[in-house]
Parts: sequence; C-alpha cells; structure tokens
Amino acid sequence: MTESDLPVAHLTPGRWGDPNHQVEVPQAALDALKHLGVRRPPAHPAQPQPEPDRPGLSADQLSFLVSVLGEQYVSTDVDIRWAHTRGYSTTDLLRFRANDRSDMPDAVIFPGTHEEVLGLLAGCGEHGLAVVPYSGGTSVVGGLAANRRFVTVDLRRLDQLTELDEVSRTAIFQAGVRGTAAEKLLADRGYTLGHFPQSYEGASIGGYAAARSSGQSSAGYGRFDQMVVGLTLATPRGTIKLGRAPMSAAGPDLRQLVLGSEGAFGIITEVVVRVRPRPTERHFEGWRFDNFAAGLTAVRRLAQDGPLPTVLRLSDEVETAVNLADPDVLGGGSGGALAIIGCDGPYNQATADVLTDAGGQNLGEGPGETWRVGRYRAPYLRDPLLDEGALVETLETAAFWSRIPALKSAVTEALVDALKDTPPLVLCHISHVYETGASLYLTVVCAQTGNPVEQWRTAKRAASQAIADAGGTISHHHGVGTDHRDAYETEIGPLAVEALKAVKHTLDPDGVLNPGILLS
Amino acid sequence: MTESDLPVAHLTPGRWGDPNHQVEVPQAALDALKHLGVRRPPAHPAQPQPEPDRPGLSADQLSFLVSVLGEQYVSTDVDIRWAHTRGYSTTDLLRFRANDRSDMPDAVIFPGTHEEVLGLLAGCGEHGLAVVPYSGGTSVVGGLAANRRFVTVDLRRLDQLTELDEVSRTAIFQAGVRGTAAEKLLADRGYTLGHFPQSYEGASIGGYAAARSSGQSSAGYGRFDQMVVGLTLATPRGTIKLGRAPMSAAGPDLRQLVLGSEGAFGIITEVVVRVRPRPTERHFEGWRFDNFAAGLTAVRRLAQDGPLPTVLRLSDEVETAVNLADPDVLGGGSGGALAIIGCDGPYNQATADVLTDAGGQNLGEGPGETWRVGRYRAPYLRDPLLDEGALVETLETAAFWSRIPALKSAVTEALVDALKDTPPLVLCHISHVYETGASLYLTVVCAQTGNPVEQWRTAKRAASQAIADAGGTISHHHGVGTDHRDAYETEIGPLAVEALKAVKHTLDPDGVLNPGILLS
Repeated sequence: MTESDLPVAHLTPGRWGDPNHQVEVPQAALDALKHLGVRRPPAHPAQPQPEPDRPGLSADQLSFLVSVLGEQYVSTDVDIRWAHTRGYSTTDLLRFRANDRSDMPDAVIFPGTHEEVLGLLAGCGEHGLAVVPYSGGTSVVGGLAANRRFVTVDLRRLDQLTELDEVSRTAIFQAGVRGTAAEKLLADRGYTLGHFPQSYEGASIGGYAAARSSGQSSAGYGRFDQMVVGLTLATPRGTIKLGRAPMSAAGPDLRQLVLGSEGAFGIITEVVVRVRPRPTERHFEGWRFDNFAAGLTAVRRLAQDGPLPTVLRLSDEVETAVNLADPDVLGGGSGGALAIIGCDGPYNQATADVLTDAGGQNLGEGPGETWRVGRYRAPYLRDPLLDEGALVETLETAAFWSRIPALKSAVTEALVDALKDTPPLVLCHISHVYETGASLYLTVVCAQTGNPVEQWRTAKRAASQAIADAGGTISHHHGVGTDHRDAYETEIGPLAVEALKAVKHTLDPDGVLNPGILLS
Repeated sequence: MTESDLPVAHLTPGRWGDPNHQVEVPQAALDALKHLGVRRPPAHPAQPQPEPDRPGLSADQLSFLVSVLGEQYVSTDVDIRWAHTRGYSTTDLLRFRANDRSDMPDAVIFPGTHEEVLGLLAGCGEHGLAVVPYSGGTSVVGGLAANRRFVTVDLRRLDQLTELDEVSRTAIFQAGVRGTAAEKLLADRGYTLGHFPQSYEGASIGGYAAARSSGQSSAGYGRFDQMVVGLTLATPRGTIKLGRAPMSAAGPDLRQLVLGSEGAFGIITEVVVRVRPRPTERHFEGWRFDNFAAGLTAVRRLAQDGPLPTVLRLSDEVETAVNLADPDVLGGGSGGALAIIGCDGPYNQATADVLTDAGGQNLGEGPGETWRVGRYRAPYLRDPLLDEGALVETLETAAFWSRIPALKSAVTEALVDALKDTPPLVLCHISHVYETGASLYLTVVCAQTGNPVEQWRTAKRAASQAIADAGGTISHHHGVGTDHRDAYETEIGPLAVEALKAVKHTLDPDGVLNPGILLS
C-alpha cells in the first residue's frame, strides 16, 4: 500500500480530519484566549525525527505476515507506520507534535477477509507478535498504544455492506466500513444507520462497536451498542458469531461482552446493525433556558415522558456564552443555557410544547442549522488552538439524573483546582439522555504550560477521581483505552476485572490482542 | 420456618399458582380434547413417597449453615424441601405427580441479607455444599435442578424496596421481592415497573434478572433486562456491584453478563430498575386479521414504525380458533388471527390507524378485557388438563422478522412429526416485538402416552433442532436451565462456552453455584 491509499484522516498525521476542511479560530475566540493567558508558543516546526533505534520485525515475523496476507498488504513503511501511531486525544496530538515515536507500530497490515484475520491471530502467538486492531484510528483514550511492540491491523479493506435485510431492517457491515461510507451505502437503498458521532468522518463500524460509540442522534436512534444485533469476532482461538435474534433469554448477552472490549478479546470483523428508513426531512432548532438547571429539568422531562426528539443537547451557561461569542459557530439567543433540538421527520410540535412548558424559549431554526452545519467542526478547532498555545481537551461521563448536578460541579471544581496555575474555562453540555440519567461532556481550555502532556494528565487524574467520587462512570462514549484503564478497573472492582481477564485469557492465551488496552 | 410461611405458589406443591384461583377446563375444550384422543387416565392419587435413601447433610454442613444464618433459617423439613423441588415445566409437574424426589434439595435456607449470602457462598466450597438460588421457583426450563446434592437458597426474606429515586426514576429492590409485591410497593408511591410475565404471581425480581424475563407489556416497557440499570451479585469470592450510569462506554456491559447467568456466576441480591409513573388508564382491544400473515405484517409495522402500544400480541389461526372456542377465555371475533392491543395511558388512535390500514378489524374492548382478566390463567389450566390425560406444554423462540414465517412452520412441523402417534394441536402467538424481529410462543396439546416425560422430551428435542436450523434462538424469555443447556451451547459455540466457563471458574472456583445449570 502506498500513502495515497491512506484515508483522508491521516493525510496530515497528528491533525484531525480532512486537511481540506481545516478551520481557523475565530478572532473573538482568540481574544478570549488572551484573558486565559494563552500565548502563542515560539515556533518549533515539526521535524520528522529518525525512527528510534529498535530492531523492527524479524525476517521470520515478516515472512509469517506475508504468508497470511500477501506482500502488498504488509507495510513497514515509516510514513504509513507514523500515520497509524496513536489516536486523537490532545495528549496524542501533543506527543505527535513532539515527534514522540515511542508508540509507532512495527508494521501495518491490511487483511481483506475474516479468514485472513483469523489466520493472522492464530499465528501471532507463535511468532511473538502483538496486534492492535485499527479501523478509524480516532481513539481519544489511548486505545491504539499497546504496551509492547506490535503490528497494527488496519481493517479498511473490510469495506462492504454484505447484506441488507429490508424485512428485518438489518444490515451486515464489514468492520472497516467508515461511518460516512456506511451512510452512503445505506442511503442508496433508502436507509440510514443514524449514527453520527463527532468522529463520523474518520471512524468505522468496527470501532463504533469495539468502543461503544454514541452519536449526536442518540436520543432518536440510540447508542451504537443498541443498534447492534449481531457480531462476528475473530480471536486467536477461532471465531465467535453472536446474535440469532434481536433479544434472547439464552444466557448472558454475549454481544454486550464483545461490545466495548476494544480489541482485547478479538477483532470484530462483521457487525449486524438495525437500520431505519432514511428520513425525508429534518428540523433543528435552538431553545433558550434561563439557566442550565432549568434546561436540565426540561431535557429530563423529554427523556422520561417524551416525546424524545432525534437530537437533544443542552449547553451550560459557560458553553452557551463561548459558543454565542462566535456567531458563526452558534448564533442567536442571549445568554442562559442553549439547547439544540433536532427531529428526523415532520416537525415535532409535542416536543416543542414540553420545552415551552418547561420554560424554554424557541430561538427558531437559526441556531439549530448553525449547529448542524458545524457539528463535526469542533475537533478541527483543536489543532489551531494548540498552535496558539492553548491546551484544549474534552472528557465525558454519565450518571443517574439525581447525581448530575453534583457530578457536574465536582468535576468542574476538580479541573479548576488542578489547573489553578493556568486558570481554565470549563464548558459543559449534555448530549445523550436516558430515562434514568444522562451524559456530561466537558471541554477544558487553558494556557499550555511548558509540559502540556503532564499538565493535562494531572487535570485528568483529578477529574477522574471527582467522577468516581460523585458516582459517575469514567466514560459514557469515549471508551477505556489506556487512559481510563485504572479508573475503569476501580469502577468495576477487582473481581469483575478478574472475570474479564479470564475471558481474555481464554480467547487470547498468548496475550496477542491489544496488550495493555482495557485491562492491565 | 414452617409451611405456613411458604409463599402461596407452593401451598400445593407441583400445581401452578394460588390454590384459591384454580380453574376448570371449559367443557368445549374437554370436547375438543376428545378429538385429539385425550382420555382421562385411571386415577392414581399422588401418594407422598418416602424420601430416597440418602445421607442428607452432615452435622458439620448443618452446623456451618446454622452458623451463618441462625437455626430458624435453616430447614431440612421434608415438606419444605419437597415444595422447593424443581420448577413448573410440564416435565417437572409430571415428575412431581410421579413423586419423583430425585431433585429434592437437602436443605432449604433463608438468608436475610447480602452479607449472609456472601458468608454462605464463601464457605460452601470448604463444606462441600452446592447451592441453588431460589426466588420464585417458577422456572420452566429445569433451572432448579442441580446435578448434585444441594442446598436451596430461598431469597424471600430479601423483600424490601430499599430506595426509590424519583428524580432518576430508579428503584432498588432486594432480589426476593415478588412481582406482585414490587408493583404494590411502587404503586403506593405512584410508580410501576411494568413487568408482567405470566409467572407474575410467583416470580420475583432476582429471578426476573437471573433468567432475562420478559413480560406481557414488553412492547411498552421493554424486557426485564432492559429495565435493569444496576445489580449486586454475591459470589463465593466476594461482591460485584455494577451500574453507575444508565449506559457507559467503560468496557463491556457487565450487567448483561450477569443478567441471564441463572445463578451460575453468583446470587443476585439486589437489582436497580427503571420505574415509570403508574398509568391512570389502560385500554385493551381485540383486533382481527384475515390470517396470521396479515397480522404479522401489521405488528411488524408497529414494531418498526410505531407507535407501539404497551401490549402487542398476535395469535395464529389455530390459537385464535381454540381461544374463541371458549367465549369465557377470549370472546368475540370470527376466525382469522386475533391480536390483542393494550395501551397504558390515553387511547392510542395512531396505533389503531396503523392496524386498520394494515387490514385489521377492531373488535372493541370485549376481547381485550377478556384477555386482561384471564391473562395469568393459562398456566392454571395445565394442571386440570394433565388430570384429564392431555399433555400440554409451551416453548418459545425469537428470530429476525424475515425468518419468522419459516421458523414457525419448521417448529410446528417438527412437533407434529415428533408427536405423530398422538397428533398434537400446535398453537402459536407473537407476544414480544422488536424493530428487527419478534418472539414466537408455541403451545402443544396432545394425548399423553404411557411415558409423557419421554414423550415430551422427544418432541422438544425435535423442536429445538428445528429452531436451530431455522435461525432462531433456543429461548426468548424462558431461559436455559438444564432443558436448553445443550442447545444453548451449540447456539453460542464452543469458544463462547469456554469464555463463560472461565468467568464461572473465576467467580466460583469450587463449582458451588447451581452446578449443571446454564453450563455443562
């Protein structure tokens, strides 16, 4: 494979997304950053450093890979390996900028079939190879950084919609199909998956499943793990195929054991998902509430008593103010807390009535359309913000409704306290709701110190402890990776960790799969 | 404990339900049975047989149990043990009638706290005891018949609603709370769980969770596994507590590993469930379709495009005819396929419009109310039918919509073929629907042979094979127990079985928990 075959998201390694869609930071935002003490750092252009002195794959290992996949699908090219290094957390980007090549894979391989993945995994133990499954490369939790030398298994050649059952409304996708490609393939037949995470342009079906992705339309379409009705998993010991019915009482739901396993139990090669007819119209509106608490009550009412819209987001006062400071990003309104309500299908008056009744003020389609148009843009802003000397990162959690206010306060306070030398702006929104609770998504912006990687680690550690203490989960939709591993193990407890390790040891006795990811 | 403390459902061991609510078989049904060759067998009144010659618990074992629970909560009384023997499959009832005491527990114990359950499990290995968790005792898949001598752990003393969070709409129930008691406790506060399986009068919260129960209002309230947001599991190696948020991306959803584990991984002592405001009105209607295929299309439209009612059932032509033969059981209509549509809350005209558009004829509230009033009665009919010499049993499965028609035919044909010496009546209905598929529930009635246990086993084996071949799951809501164990292991495959056994071995290294249930 040559670099020109690489997906768009990696044409500029270490910067988010399509280089043709890079955005500039609005002047108003730049001005605001000055108040945070953000100063553009002295230019130190990224110089590709020589590869660290390390042995690379042995001739025997290479020959094994070539025997399974064919020569053209095994690459040790340094540019391709560099483009497959880590994911897209801010820490990843900072280390990318520093040309830190410590997590670079030793080879990148491109299997074309489930059987090739099986053959690969079956032989990796014997050949002393660890593998990191890679579909979109959009992990923001260190999900691509194995703790020993490894081969990255890029699944892009598994790019087919292999079956569409229009009676059952299910589609079988190979794991490497990108979100955008999946929607295109379904749209051609009149259907949609309805899964639109912020990584939509880069992430793929297998990654959605492996990391329990949740998209912007989750109120209407559910999380990705709720869309999955079947899975095929390749493990070093063979295939597991799950899902003979939408639901079953035949034992534990093993699909839910594979979903979220982040490549530690096997490589998901195929996913059966529920699809829906493509909507013929969509409506997006902005709604203003006097404050976050009032908006929270409103969105809880919708989540509990309906009718739920397709998209339901509520920004707190700080996020509302920041977004409104840039009319191009999110115009309209006048302070308070901004909600974005999106509906697939006819305009949903009943939802609007609930919002009005709960004190909401309809701002019309303007802010809704602005959000819709810009909804994949936020991660693009991070790169120029880093260039400007700002530290920008997000984190997220979820909890039951009664814990949400205290959880939000506790995490915000922990961040402010941990970053007191570079006072941060902490923005928060709710973007995924359930009858019993919701997610919280926080964005942190402050001035970079001389060691921004360590700066963020300290802040993140404080936030994670606050989440644990306030009864939240360490991740609502980003996953565990390496960044959340310790907090995750604390969250589920040592006995549950042992049970998961027993599963891993059964399926992956040689520890070939994603070593260090999910489980220590 | 004395027999008077036993729950209603066991006052008449080996007969379903409350003895005050026993029903008689309608004369029309008795006449119909004659056409199937059903003849009342010669009376052989049930004589309690002496207990088989076996050693019982050792003094050391008894003393261990007493040390953990106190003397008054450890019973070796033969009547209490007999009342805890097996569940309520037809095979169980037949063996009960034959005074087959082979699966009788050696003691029945009644822990009162999670800590007592923990203490019990921690010591069982050392004392050579196996335990069978028992909450409602309503298993119909051999879920209470361990493959070696055992102590039954009756959870009835765990009978509290320990927390109701009205903001999050969650309730924490101890595992031994009966379905009826749970509804009563919630109704006092204005809420409902909305879970009404046919075992509602006898089953309990812990059993619902352990066996992935699904109730008659599943279209509106979901399955029990969809209501659970948290769980506490006591294992021989300690406690696992799960569920810090409605949903999480922090690894696999371990709640879904415990749900359906049928006591093989631990004893569920506490369940956190989503609750909803109690509806102020309910509507039930009958709808007639020309045939099952037309009804199937209609219910699929509701399941896929909505609006879903709360209760959605569709009987095939045979079940419709049989039910209509007895106007007291289900009156009105004139052949075809009968659907029962129930709505909590205001009358749902939009649902009615879909049904009309799909060719349905509204039969009004008569058949709906008749169904509602009699909806827990069907299992009561089985006892007098067995008295009359009929073999009556049910089985169920689920599959994706496109497979439903062929699956229904295949299972029916398999049953008819396997029972060709005693030609059966096979009734079928759909009672649980999803966007991508539905359940099928079949009732079989035929004349008993001289060995009805073996007669049913042969038929069930044929039906199970047909289900596997036609792409269904071995159980949509009855569970695995011992009856479905082989089919279950085939369904998920040997590698998944190994993974589950690894989990079991981790949590239960001495094989104390429900040996032989779920996993071989």
